[in-house]
Amino acid sequence: MQQTKTMDYNAPSEVKEIEVVNTLELEERAGQIVPHGGFHYMSGGSGDEFTLRKNIESFNYKGILPRVLADVEHPDSSTSILGHDIRAPFIMAPIAAHGLAHQSKEAGTARGVAEFGTIMSISAYSGAKFEEIEEGLNGSPRWFQIYMSKDDEINKAIVDEAKADGATAIILTADSTLSGNREKDIRNKFVYPFGMPIVSRYLTGTGEKMSLNNIYAQSKQKISPQDVTFLSDYSGLPIFVKGIQAPEDAIIAIEAGASGIWVSNHGGRQLDGAPGSFETLEVIAEAVQGRVPIVFDSGIRRGEHIFKALASGADVVAIGRPALYGLALGGWKGVKSVFDYFDKDLKRVMQLAGTQTVEDIKNTTLFKNN
Amino acid sequence: MQQTKTMDYNAPSEVKEIEVVNTLELEERAGQIVPHGGFHYMSGGSGDEFTLRKNIESFNYKGILPRVLADVEHPDSSTSILGHDIRAPFIMAPIAAHGLAHQSKEAGTARGVAEFGTIMSISAYSGAKFEEIEEGLNGSPRWFQIYMSKDDEINKAIVDEAKADGATAIILTADSTLSGNREKDIRNKFVYPFGMPIVSRYLTGTGEKMSLNNIYAQSKQKISPQDVTFLSDYSGLPIFVKGIQAPEDAIIAIEAGASGIWVSNHGGRQLDGAPGSFETLEVIAEAVQGRVPIVFDSGIRRGEHIFKALASGADVVAIGRPALYGLALGGWKGVKSVFDYFDKDLKRVMQLAGTQTVEDIKNTTLFKNN
Amino acid sequence: MQQTKTMDYNAPSEVKEIEVVNTLELEERAGQIVPHGGFHYMSGGSGDEFTLRKNIESFNYKGILPRVLADVEHPDSSTSILGHDIRAPFIMAPIAAHGLAHQSKEAGTARGVAEFGTIMSISAYSGAKFEEIEEGLNGSPRWFQIYMSKDDEINKAIVDEAKADGATAIILTADSTLSGNREKDIRNKFVYPFGMPIVSRYLTGTGEKMSLNNIYAQSKQKISPQDVTFLSDYSGLPIFVKGIQAPEDAIIAIEAGASGIWVSNHGGRQLDGAPGSFETLEVIAEAVQGRVPIVFDSGIRRGEHIFKALASGADVVAIGRPALYGLALGGWKGVKSVFDYFDKDLKRVMQLAGTQTVEDIKNTTLFKNN
Amino acid sequence: MQQTKTMDYNAPSEVKEIEVVNTLELEERAGQIVPHGGFHYMSGGSGDEFTLRKNIESFNYKGILPRVLADVEHPDSSTSILGHDIRAPFIMAPIAAHGLAHQSKEAGTARGVAEFGTIMSISAYSGAKFEEIEEGLNGSPRWFQIYMSKDDEINKAIVDEAKADGATAIILTADSTLSGNREKDIRNKFVYPFGMPIVSRYLTGTGEKMSLNNIYAQSKQKISPQDVTFLSDYSGLPIFVKGIQAPEDAIIAIEAGASGIWVSNHGGRQLDGAPGSFETLEVIAEAVQGRVPIVFDSGIRRGEHIFKALASGADVVAIGRPALYGLALGGWKGVKSVFDYFDKDLKRVMQLAGTQTVEDIKNTTLFKNN
Repeated sequence: MQQTKTMDYNAPSEVKEIEVVNTLELEERAGQIVPHGGFHYMSGGSGDEFTLRKNIESFNYKGILPRVLADVEHPDSSTSILGHDIRAPFIMAPIAAHGLAHQSKEAGTARGVAEFGTIMSISAYSGAKFEEIEEGLNGSPRWFQIYMSKDDEINKAIVDEAKADGATAIILTADSTLSGNREKDIRNKFVYPFGMPIVSRYLTGTGEKMSLNNIYAQSKQKISPQDVTFLSDYSGLPIFVKGIQAPEDAIIAIEAGASGIWVSNHGGRQLDGAPGSFETLEVIAEAVQGRVPIVFDSGIRRGEHIFKALASGADVVAIGRPALYGLALGGWKGVKSVFDYFDKDLKRVMQLAGTQTVEDIKNTTLFKNN
Repeated sequence: MQQTKTMDYNAPSEVKEIEVVNTLELEERAGQIVPHGGFHYMSGGSGDEFTLRKNIESFNYKGILPRVLADVEHPDSSTSILGHDIRAPFIMAPIAAHGLAHQSKEAGTARGVAEFGTIMSISAYSGAKFEEIEEGLNGSPRWFQIYMSKDDEINKAIVDEAKADGATAIILTADSTLSGNREKDIRNKFVYPFGMPIVSRYLTGTGEKMSLNNIYAQSKQKISPQDVTFLSDYSGLPIFVKGIQAPEDAIIAIEAGASGIWVSNHGGRQLDGAPGSFETLEVIAEAVQGRVPIVFDSGIRRGEHIFKALASGADVVAIGRPALYGLALGGWKGVKSVFDYFDKDLKRVMQLAGTQTVEDIKNTTLFKNN
Repeated sequence: MQQTKTMDYNAPSEVKEIEVVNTLELEERAGQIVPHGGFHYMSGGSGDEFTLRKNIESFNYKGILPRVLADVEHPDSSTSILGHDIRAPFIMAPIAAHGLAHQSKEAGTARGVAEFGTIMSISAYSGAKFEEIEEGLNGSPRWFQIYMSKDDEINKAIVDEAKADGATAIILTADSTLSGNREKDIRNKFVYPFGMPIVSRYLTGTGEKMSLNNIYAQSKQKISPQDVTFLSDYSGLPIFVKGIQAPEDAIIAIEAGASGIWVSNHGGRQLDGAPGSFETLEVIAEAVQGRVPIVFDSGIRRGEHIFKALASGADVVAIGRPALYGLALGGWKGVKSVFDYFDKDLKRVMQLAGTQTVEDIKNTTLFKNN
Repeated sequence: MQQTKTMDYNAPSEVKEIEVVNTLELEERAGQIVPHGGFHYMSGGSGDEFTLRKNIESFNYKGILPRVLADVEHPDSSTSILGHDIRAPFIMAPIAAHGLAHQSKEAGTARGVAEFGTIMSISAYSGAKFEEIEEGLNGSPRWFQIYMSKDDEINKAIVDEAKADGATAIILTADSTLSGNREKDIRNKFVYPFGMPIVSRYLTGTGEKMSLNNIYAQSKQKISPQDVTFLSDYSGLPIFVKGIQAPEDAIIAIEAGASGIWVSNHGGRQLDGAPGSFETLEVIAEAVQGRVPIVFDSGIRRGEHIFKALASGADVVAIGRPALYGLALGGWKGVKSVFDYFDKDLKRVMQLAGTQTVEDIKNTTLFKNN
């Protein structure tokens, strides 16, 4: 395969509503218009991609039994988390480098998310600056995801900037102190075609023409409970620890001051041969015992998946790749189309399952499929 | 894909006996002669069609161990349900819009079912009127399946009409207050090419050129135990609640006055990612404890399947798609061919399993396959 | 597909040793030279052929752990059953109509089996007469498999003839009072191209140009424990009841006078959707508790399979299709090649597993594979 | 297929670093340059190759849950075994006839292993002499793997020679007193294209133009605990018993004087239908109870696999086929590339799993995947 030519990376630029029959096929459609290296970076997983596949398949290990005499009509999918009322129990997951998908970069995603009516997560590896993203958000709620610097003074500066931008929570990604074994990126010799303004403080160079390995190597590789405490104390904001797969880590994070647990296996991009993220959710929820909210990601593609995650202990889920494919296919309108799809599909499932509210979903017992 | 042209929907019209080596291949054969949109509507399921596939596969989770010294010959497959003596422990399932399969519509199916000697279920979404269906039934027993109107006066009128037609039971479909996520129909922009006379009372328009979503939206979306009681009280007929997958719903239905439980996941057309219908049967039967009869559908394609359903708690099973494919391929004679096939195949299984009667089947313990 | 032309059925006739790298590929090789209808009759199973596949696959549910310090060399695979010393713990299974595979018919198989040094099972549906088979056996031990007539006087005559021929045991096939749902035969409109002299006493016609359904319909369809007792009392020979899959049937058979249990699902040709025969062996052996010997068939293709069956409760196994393919490919020499292969392969497994004798195999505990 | 022409077996000869994106594809790449018969000998397994496949697949039965707040950076993969400090917890497995892969034979492998910094295992079936291998090893540590002669005087002479060469441990391969059923070799009529100088003492001929069956037949086929004791007493070196799959054998070996247990199923080349070697590791480790070190092989292809084996009871793992493919593709530099890859990949996994040292890996509890 050829090296991705970073100089002339031509991301799509069209802005339009898109038809979403299902989100799985969005990947194929996006693959036809997003440059090769960028598409593989977005869609790929680590190793054999066993865990990537399991993330989706594992939802079928449990089934929703319809409750057909529940007297439900017009189910209400709205909920709230950490004081934010949101239109539906899903938010935007933090993802690096949206510019790979669309020329509007994170600003496009942000606008789609805001217009839909839920929370935007801004990645520290954003290719857009806070002020550019604000053009899309237009005051709508946002959380900030941090990859920490080795230097806490830089971390303070980044947190300060995020707070100034209006972030109401910090998401500490703890599962990626170095990159998973993403073979597609290795084969493509993938490097980012543009810089990362938010973390350029601690990068030698701006991030442009750097591989993920290079970038991770310059960020903090040694995350500990003290980092959770530090971020919490310094920012005064609620801290989510993202990348939790072991129940023990959830407990450690809470004891260190985390205000939320973010169950994720990084979309199957870190440790391969691990269980589907959904397989770990229930035991983590049992360990958390409702002390803090749980966000879940990795594998959400359908309304059924959202329902099952909520019935297994999540308070909200985060949408990753499908939103990015929507961005590629239709800019901010494409993102909104994807979020609208999820809400419509979730409501259908709620109705068929006999659940009026998000709380009803959480009280549902799933069936263990054979 | 092109939009189905509703104006010139050309359903098959041939009437002839058909060879049934197995019912699975009938689908393929029907697909060659039934117009594209209609065929996909009939054959498709929701979402990934995981549950559609599981409906058939799950029968292999249990095995029939032959009893070879049982002194059985000429097994008797006849049985009775709610006072009707029927030739075999299977009946016709309620299915909408048989006209998609054959120009004789429900009248064709009805005649095939009646000539075979079992019960016809008439769907509220029939494309034929009661009197047209009676031409096929010619006095043979029938049950009426209702999708309720939001307006109980209309429901009363529909029930009155069904009773006047001679229905001896009402099947309340409770699992479909809106349509499952049937992607094939969405892609095909499928609309019904003809009207639905029975429910035209509550449809704006007649049902013609309407999608299933439109039609469901005009029917009652809020089904509760009170609806069971209402139908039971008003009609004086036994009420089956159809679409039961959760044991709790079976209990609620019985307490609300249901005279029968109809275990079904709507042929994998509603909630996807759910277990095969057969997987839920045993626990539902345990909850019902024999208080009322159980009808089972979703996935029956072979005599072994009928046997396994009966051995797992069903009193009779209902045949859906295979009968419709028989209708497409041979009109009423095709339907009868399919029912004859099932009876012959069931009797073969009864003989090999060492069971003389339907009661013997029910007393059989299945083997849990690896 | 065309109807098999019975008049000019040209079975192979070559006699030669064959190379057996594995017995699975013999099926493919035989399929190239055996006429279409005959090959499908031999190789096919019932229904979806789920059970046919499971018969082989299920051996992989348990694994042999090598015992590497067992001080074993030159393992001895010889054993004895019902007083016959045999060269290896496997015998020829009773199979109908060997003439489909080779012009030497059962006489060819018999010679290959006798030259190898184990027991021949002669099927009541043999296409050769006893005296023809004797030409191959040349005094070597044989058991006779019976499909009973509805008329016990005829049964007596058949038993008399088998005894006169030197049969030392009777195998009562109890699982086939009618034919399984063999779709390939139905499609091929398969009929036997030659007669069945042994059972011609009770057949209208000789069996020639009859389907298996016709023939079974004329045999006894009502097998009971009394039949076991009758055969035992009248013949004075040990009786195996063949087709046992349920532990209860094993107990009933023994109580009725059976001297042996033959665990089999008729090579996946009767009830489909049933477990692999190997899956049922262990529980049957537990029910038998060593009171009588157990013969196992259905799925044996490798030395590992023989070992696993013996370690799960069988005393000997019976070889079916592989021997018939050997017959097709090389006449009696081909049959012997197949039996030689099994012995060589079994001894290799015995050596690697650290077992010196057949008794050692029986005392081996298998590992439950994941 | 044609017989491998032994006279003109042209093994690759290039020496170069190779790119290792993953080791699975090395097999395909090696298959393009290694002569047919030699490649099949190296890559093939026995029987259906079920166990060969399971060796790799079974690692996915358990998952590593990342520990993300473990305060880990720059993990240290070094360890020691039997007094040798090694760079990483993996060594070279004993493999016969490296000359099939590369003209530098075992000397090439030895140099790659030594340059990497771990232990070389020299096979008794080496195609190179000790002194040739020493050219590659250059004083680096080595263990000697023995296939015993039937004559203990010869065994003494071989052990003497190995000790003189500097071997610090003896690996007694106990699982291969004859060859597994390797169908590819049978079809290829594979014979070694060159001799085996170390065991030529007990071979009629030198090993050249002999099949593995011939060679095994001349070695000792009767391995017992006494052989372990003999080797231990005579050599004064620690003895590993290799090929342990049953916990009982581990106990017997230790009681007979083994200083180490080598869990292996010979790369799926002996008993087929057996579990993946990884499936047996945990129960063996429980039986060993830490009394002696455990080496594990069969199926290691990724850093995750090494991690999982260590977390399941192994002290070090041994690399087989991937190293040989590396040898084929790049001579000693190719071997070193493969070992470097494993170390880099393992360290990545250690970091992501939150484990600083090999001891931390051993203390990790894995997640049972669904």
